[in-house]
Amino acid sequence: MIQKAPIHQNTKAAENGYACPQAVHGGDVYRNEVKLDYSVSLNPLGVPEKIRSAALKGLDEITHYPDPYHIELRTVLAKAENTDPEKIVCGSGASELIMAAVHAFMPHKALITAPCYSGYETALRASEAAITEYPLSESDDFELGEGILDMISEDTDMVFITDPNNPTGRLTDEELIVRIAEKCAACGAVLMIDECFRPLTGRGSSGLPHGKGSSDAAFGTVLHLRAFTKTFAIPGIRLGYIITDDISAADKIRKHLPEWNISRIAERTGAAASELMTDSDYISRAAAEIARERVYLTGELESLGIRVYPGDANYLLIRTESGLYEKLLANGILIRRCANFHGLDETYYRIAVRRHEDNVILTDVLRRIYQE
Amino acid sequence: MIQKAPIHQNTKAAENGYACPQAVHGGDVYRNEVKLDYSVSLNPLGVPEKIRSAALKGLDEITHYPDPYHIELRTVLAKAENTDPEKIVCGSGASELIMAAVHAFMPHKALITAPCYSGYETALRASEAAITEYPLSESDDFELGEGILDMISEDTDMVFITDPNNPTGRLTDEELIVRIAEKCAACGAVLMIDECFRPLTGRGSSGLPHGKGSSDAAFGTVLHLRAFTKTFAIPGIRLGYIITDDISAADKIRKHLPEWNISRIAERTGAAASELMTDSDYISRAAAEIARERVYLTGELESLGIRVYPGDANYLLIRTESGLYEKLLANGILIRRCANFHGLDETYYRIAVRRHEDNVILTDVLRRIYQE
Repeated sequence: MIQKAPIHQNTKAAENGYACPQAVHGGDVYRNEVKLDYSVSLNPLGVPEKIRSAALKGLDEITHYPDPYHIELRTVLAKAENTDPEKIVCGSGASELIMAAVHAFMPHKALITAPCYSGYETALRASEAAITEYPLSESDDFELGEGILDMISEDTDMVFITDPNNPTGRLTDEELIVRIAEKCAACGAVLMIDECFRPLTGRGSSGLPHGKGSSDAAFGTVLHLRAFTKTFAIPGIRLGYIITDDISAADKIRKHLPEWNISRIAERTGAAASELMTDSDYISRAAAEIARERVYLTGELESLGIRVYPGDANYLLIRTESGLYEKLLANGILIRRCANFHGLDETYYRIAVRRHEDNVILTDVLRRIYQE
Repeated sequence: MIQKAPIHQNTKAAENGYACPQAVHGGDVYRNEVKLDYSVSLNPLGVPEKIRSAALKGLDEITHYPDPYHIELRTVLAKAENTDPEKIVCGSGASELIMAAVHAFMPHKALITAPCYSGYETALRASEAAITEYPLSESDDFELGEGILDMISEDTDMVFITDPNNPTGRLTDEELIVRIAEKCAACGAVLMIDECFRPLTGRGSSGLPHGKGSSDAAFGTVLHLRAFTKTFAIPGIRLGYIITDDISAADKIRKHLPEWNISRIAERTGAAASELMTDSDYISRAAAEIARERVYLTGELESLGIRVYPGDANYLLIRTESGLYEKLLANGILIRRCANFHGLDETYYRIAVRRHEDNVILTDVLRRIYQE
């Protein structure tokens, strides 16, 4: 199945004078002719019908202000996540919550890993925080090691862990996550664990034992960052949330979110998605298909001499001669160049794990490219 | 025509433990049984069909990330506003832009009027700014006077003017707006002029001569805050923008906005709305109808002994015995209590100017209440 992306003419030229930097993320279908988008990593099963109809219902209500307190959304979401509504902060995408958390805690010094998702750095730089990077090592297949514990100290204000990491796809060892949370608590650092991609790994929503529904208050301020974007393939809607047992932290973050931050459409969509989280096997079916296709893609790519790093996510970090991006784009396939991730270079790429019929097209094109 | 609002059961009780304050804005149809919502002030002509179909088109594209640079939206918007794309900052509602501007400039001291829209204070308090209020006087019918000029000094970092003001509905004298902008420039203060309600006054988008399309760079940093919410009756979508000739200010604000802050639906809607701004008489027809109905409502309310303050907007500030809110709500009509506006008390209310058939229902109910 070929995915139709909206194509915008003349936008390349139009970038001049628009105060926009070079595209730094995947999903830039606005400046490329794309038939298959392997640059974004969404649930390959696509948008469930219940989500579409909920969004349509929201559209019928656009003459109403959304509920600024998200009562209905937090009610169903708390039920799905087995937590309390007061422990949930809703945001217009995970990106809004990262920005709000940084504005709320105004860290002087923050710790991230390299490579990792660039959004933390974007938010931290806007607020002029000093950023320390813990370098992940290619020779360890980019697995997060316990060396990070030594980098959390009394003057660390905030730590960001992506679990699974992006673009490496590695889950963090669950024992290590506990030790990181304990060290953060001991040092008074706020810990944000970005779990946006976690549901599609099939390993549950959190690697922190107490983050799985009960309480992780013993660990200090832990912010579990989650979103509907990847899990339900709806990046165009904008909806994410933080779960934290630190209720004063939740209040603090809410103060830095704009009023009516969730659109009526996102409210309705989020409520429907929450119900799907409990009432359907949509996520587990997706995780199973992704696991199968990850194996298929890994085998195919390795047979062409492409280095595929072991990962647990619905995307794979790969390494090969540079130039692959341009060659695939000439065939209408968009992948994610990783040269702008700290610690990587132009030989690294990230590809999504899509449905089998798409992956067959990708591997066919790759075979043509590599066997020319 | 009776408006159907979504009614949510049991939400009053559910407020406990949801970390939500008492409702502080209009439009709270989530905790009230409402047939006619006079508490929010939207274009009485309703949502144009072109906007609805654009939103639907956006809904078809929810599997795509929105364009983080808003290229298409800024292109058509710049054309409609007769300005350059780089001078436009798009936000998920005016409320997001107020928050982002405060985060960008981090004012130590800010000046607002009393009464005015509470959103500036909400954003300023989150960032711990000291707030000075210029009190508007009931004896002057809440008109903004030149006394405000004396309150702008070297240590003023940011000034917020709402034009027309909310909830008073008064436009600011155009000569005074120029003098305020000049004083702000002289003192190095950032001036935000909230013009969200201005299109529906029929007096153009800005009271600042140079803010009407060409350049007001001579005035220093002036942020014209605009939104589609009221003009196109789409508060559920979330879409607003800032126009400023200070390009470095625009960049600074963008840094404090989350990536992908505009949903795909809002992008599509905004593009369609921008085209309607230039290609249709929708706004001028609305402004003419509002002007007629403002006269009608004023006459009817005054005949019942209700004090109606002169205003230019699609809402009216009124004063009468307290208790009117409860009596109207018992009849399924929601109005805006104004006791939580600084400088007002529980005898003040704000009512929207709606279509004639709605206004007849309102005045009929009012007659029954006042002639009992």
